[in-house]
Amino acid sequence: TIRHIFKTIFAASLQLQKKEEEASLLVSRKRHPEDTVVEVGPVRIGAGVPAVVAGPCSVESYEQTRAVAEALREEGLTLLRGGAFKPRTSPYDFQGLGFDGLKILREVADEFGLKVVSEILAPEDLEMALPYIDVVQIGARNMQNFALLKAAGHIDRPVLLKRGLSATIEEFKYAAEYILAHGNPNVILCERGIRTFERATRNTLDISAVPILKAETHLPVCVDVTHAAGRRDILLPLAKAALAAGADALMIEVHPQPEVALSDAQQQVNIPEFRAWLGEIRRMFGAVV
Amino acid sequence: TIRHIFKTIFAASLQLQKKEEEASLLVSRKRHPEDTVVEVGPVRIGAGVPAVVAGPCSVESYEQTRAVAEALREEGLTLLRGGAFKPRTSPYDFQGLGFDGLKILREVADEFGLKVVSEILAPEDLEMALPYIDVVQIGARNMQNFALLKAAGHIDRPVLLKRGLSATIEEFKYAAEYILAHGNPNVILCERGIRTFERATRNTLDISAVPILKAETHLPVCVDVTHAAGRRDILLPLAKAALAAGADALMIEVHPQPEVALSDAQQQVNIPEFRAWLGEIRRMFGAVV
Amino acid sequence: TIRHIFKTIFAASLQLQKKEEEASLLVSRKRHPEDTVVEVGPVRIGAGVPAVVAGPCSVESYEQTRAVAEALREEGLTLLRGGAFKPRTSPYDFQGLGFDGLKILREVADEFGLKVVSEILAPEDLEMALPYIDVVQIGARNMQNFALLKAAGHIDRPVLLKRGLSATIEEFKYAAEYILAHGNPNVILCERGIRTFERATRNTLDISAVPILKAETHLPVCVDVTHAAGRRDILLPLAKAALAAGADALMIEVHPQPEVALSDAQQQVNIPEFRAWLGEIRRMFGAVV
Amino acid sequence: TIRHIFKTIFAASLQLQKKEEEASLLVSRKRHPEDTVVEVGPVRIGAGVPAVVAGPCSVESYEQTRAVAEALREEGLTLLRGGAFKPRTSPYDFQGLGFDGLKILREVADEFGLKVVSEILAPEDLEMALPYIDVVQIGARNMQNFALLKAAGHIDRPVLLKRGLSATIEEFKYAAEYILAHGNPNVILCERGIRTFERATRNTLDISAVPILKAETHLPVCVDVTHAAGRRDILLPLAKAALAAGADALMIEVHPQPEVALSDAQQQVNIPEFRAWLGEIRRMFGAVV
Repeated sequence: TIRHIFKTIFAASLQLQKKEEEASLLVSRKRHPEDTVVEVGPVRIGAGVPAVVAGPCSVESYEQTRAVAEALREEGLTLLRGGAFKPRTSPYDFQGLGFDGLKILREVADEFGLKVVSEILAPEDLEMALPYIDVVQIGARNMQNFALLKAAGHIDRPVLLKRGLSATIEEFKYAAEYILAHGNPNVILCERGIRTFERATRNTLDISAVPILKAETHLPVCVDVTHAAGRRDILLPLAKAALAAGADALMIEVHPQPEVALSDAQQQVNIPEFRAWLGEIRRMFGAVV
Repeated sequence: TIRHIFKTIFAASLQLQKKEEEASLLVSRKRHPEDTVVEVGPVRIGAGVPAVVAGPCSVESYEQTRAVAEALREEGLTLLRGGAFKPRTSPYDFQGLGFDGLKILREVADEFGLKVVSEILAPEDLEMALPYIDVVQIGARNMQNFALLKAAGHIDRPVLLKRGLSATIEEFKYAAEYILAHGNPNVILCERGIRTFERATRNTLDISAVPILKAETHLPVCVDVTHAAGRRDILLPLAKAALAAGADALMIEVHPQPEVALSDAQQQVNIPEFRAWLGEIRRMFGAVV
Repeated sequence: TIRHIFKTIFAASLQLQKKEEEASLLVSRKRHPEDTVVEVGPVRIGAGVPAVVAGPCSVESYEQTRAVAEALREEGLTLLRGGAFKPRTSPYDFQGLGFDGLKILREVADEFGLKVVSEILAPEDLEMALPYIDVVQIGARNMQNFALLKAAGHIDRPVLLKRGLSATIEEFKYAAEYILAHGNPNVILCERGIRTFERATRNTLDISAVPILKAETHLPVCVDVTHAAGRRDILLPLAKAALAAGADALMIEVHPQPEVALSDAQQQVNIPEFRAWLGEIRRMFGAVV
Repeated sequence: TIRHIFKTIFAASLQLQKKEEEASLLVSRKRHPEDTVVEVGPVRIGAGVPAVVAGPCSVESYEQTRAVAEALREEGLTLLRGGAFKPRTSPYDFQGLGFDGLKILREVADEFGLKVVSEILAPEDLEMALPYIDVVQIGARNMQNFALLKAAGHIDRPVLLKRGLSATIEEFKYAAEYILAHGNPNVILCERGIRTFERATRNTLDISAVPILKAETHLPVCVDVTHAAGRRDILLPLAKAALAAGADALMIEVHPQPEVALSDAQQQVNIPEFRAWLGEIRRMFGAVV
């Protein structure tokens, strides 16, 4: 019918408009063909040499954090992660040390010449946290916390944005667009697994997201192997796959004694395991920073 | 092997502990066998008579909101919904009128003796919004925005908490627990569809969540048929199914002219359609409020 | 760009063609506006009075099957289900009694004047099974077993086709189209839950599929509450929801002693539970057959 | 409560029994620690050198198939895939050339010294197809077609078994177990993407399945990059990721003129693209067969 034809043409032009809108996004590679390189101290994420972000799930104590930081330094790495504000399913689970945790991270990082990557949960904490943090992480559960995204657009610190558990790649790009549109061009996109029916892993690492995000945006792409897997035994093959697929950075949780960790005990590696993992990565891909 | 047996016994006792923890939650019916009834003006949600929450996706103008409010009043309904702060995938989409939208809602609601249900996106807006809002809605994308949940625990206003797009029923209960644990017992749980592979509907209404939430918690359960369906033609069967499954309330988006709506144009019903829908609900289930 | 415009117009016309193709399907209500009524003995599925298909997951013995059949007869029901060929995840699980099971079903059904609904797994068994079966069930795992669908198109017996675990509604319609296109117009579509991330239920009952299938096809729609839920405690609200949403039939697994069942022990109801369930259905929806 | 403790212990022992059962499966590496090497002519899949299975989605003509086969021979490859029996969503889509297609494959393969990999849909075709086929493929939609799995257990030809669209890794292993338990030890497991909410790709390649299947079974693992991606532009990064994660083989669809292909036109690569892809794989991983 003629009415249907008009509806279809209308739908087609909407689709066309949507494609054009996507091409005109600040995150779009069509608009900005060169790779964005996010600089964090001496580390240039997205410039060719894979970066590794490592550290404990939660900051639990000065000693615990220092032990991991020392290992990073010995391995020539720079990016120390650690959770101070923890988004936990239950209100009765350990919620993190908060600003005390951030202070530990800062002190330890400064001692070893490292940079701090840590998650912030609320816009009102952002400003106060800046003295302690070099890269602000926005977690998967907050990927569409638009108030937080907007606030992150107003700071002069790189943002590592994790993909939501059930966010499409398109929604992920738009979430990053919020940050860029509010003034902050330094965003790292972090694939960390999506929620599917499969339970052999905690989440399903969407490896295809890596080349798609690299092609459609100019932002560096990180893969968090720990949260994708939720189990230690496949962290090495997933890391290799991520780099082979074009990822610019890896994130992994490391704890001096995973078995007594206050969160994510089952998926963190200990320091010798981390070093072995790193050695295998280097054997296949050369230098990492 | 003996080692494996010990691990299994350990896992079993963890499981047992988890079940006990769940039974001891503030939201748990095991701990609080009587139904919680949330009172919003004359409406007692969870007391047996189905409640209907209706209104436009976004508040766009005084006239638009007033037209819907008038219809609600004529139908003897009380709960007017309307979005003032809109969580939108793209930063370039209409973000809502903000506090101006809340003022319109309040003015119109007061004129017709209605109560306002509206979403708040950020903890810092919560306090300022209270004069305008009778029920605070926390949206699906913020179900695990723990800063917002905690803030919602400190207000003396009922909270309508929507299930996250990929949240399990267990995570949904724990999100509500955050609000109760911080002091606010008046929470309405709202199933609004989960994200699956199916695309005939915008989301997949998880109808099983209704009886499970009713059995495991003492909180009233609402079903948002509009967001579950994402299409107008099945809003009636979904509403009937929700009430047949035990829901205490329904939410539906109504707009005087859906075809020119600034958001969700395809899924809102117009006022005559809404009245017809309501008539069918009443024919099958009797009075609604 | 002009090239992009042409591609979009081409995509639009493809879309248009697809819509037209769907409207021209044998299953389409556009092509065949009247409801198809599938007659099984005295039962007319799709003619207005809800039908109930009940029986054990697996036929285990003459006595077990007879006990259920007797209850059906006492309740005035006609449609006895029972698994003789069982599709099991593990080759070491009970695979069903095969043709011996079918013979038990036939004998018992004849004794009580019932009709047999039973699953067939392979095209080569179809012909031999016809003397024993009144409705051939094609299971969820075989929804796209095209050899079996084609074979089912050549028999003169109604087919109850279950939706695949991850089949879209569109794929489900096309699977039914295979049967109609090969000559058999008597197909009942059975929604039985889809596979999602949620684990509170065995599958997620896609209640929206009921009104959509009723609107887009002319075939009767059944809902298998047992496989959707995978737990006994919500079989009643799901059944009510299914009928409220427009389903023509319900399927439920009933076993004289579920706790010793050779398959699906956790989800089958015993005979008194079944009768109570049926009583509640009747109280809300009137007569069932 | 004491009753609950007993139930938990019972559940734990069931869990224990399940783990033991899994360890005792024929596919289990616990039972059979050495890698199974599947020999297809000169190619030893699982012995260390990555194998590549390539060819058109559907066999359409002698010329089309010959063009691809010639390219394979020039590249020193051996494994020619091609669809003769096509599982298609719609009964009105091209269903493949059937036995005529198999004859073309055999003739062309013999001319160039290649081996044929082709899908069989029904047990009754299996025996007749054996003269034409060197590796029998069982497709994703038939992963739990147990009649076909059992029949495949009785042939003396390797089987390439694809993972179902929504099959768990555990179910996938059990499907392979059916084949081994019925007598055929030569099974190749093929990950081809699972169905999720994401639509940027046709399916979501579950890269984690590769190391898990390698660890838990002794069977070779193949990754079908074409069906996982459903788009040409990411076939190279997915192939690299698959091999980096430990896959033993890759499958890719190649067509002399993808734009006129009778099926899967959007995802097949042409011959020059295939050769470029292969060159990049070799540059990173060395020889392939």
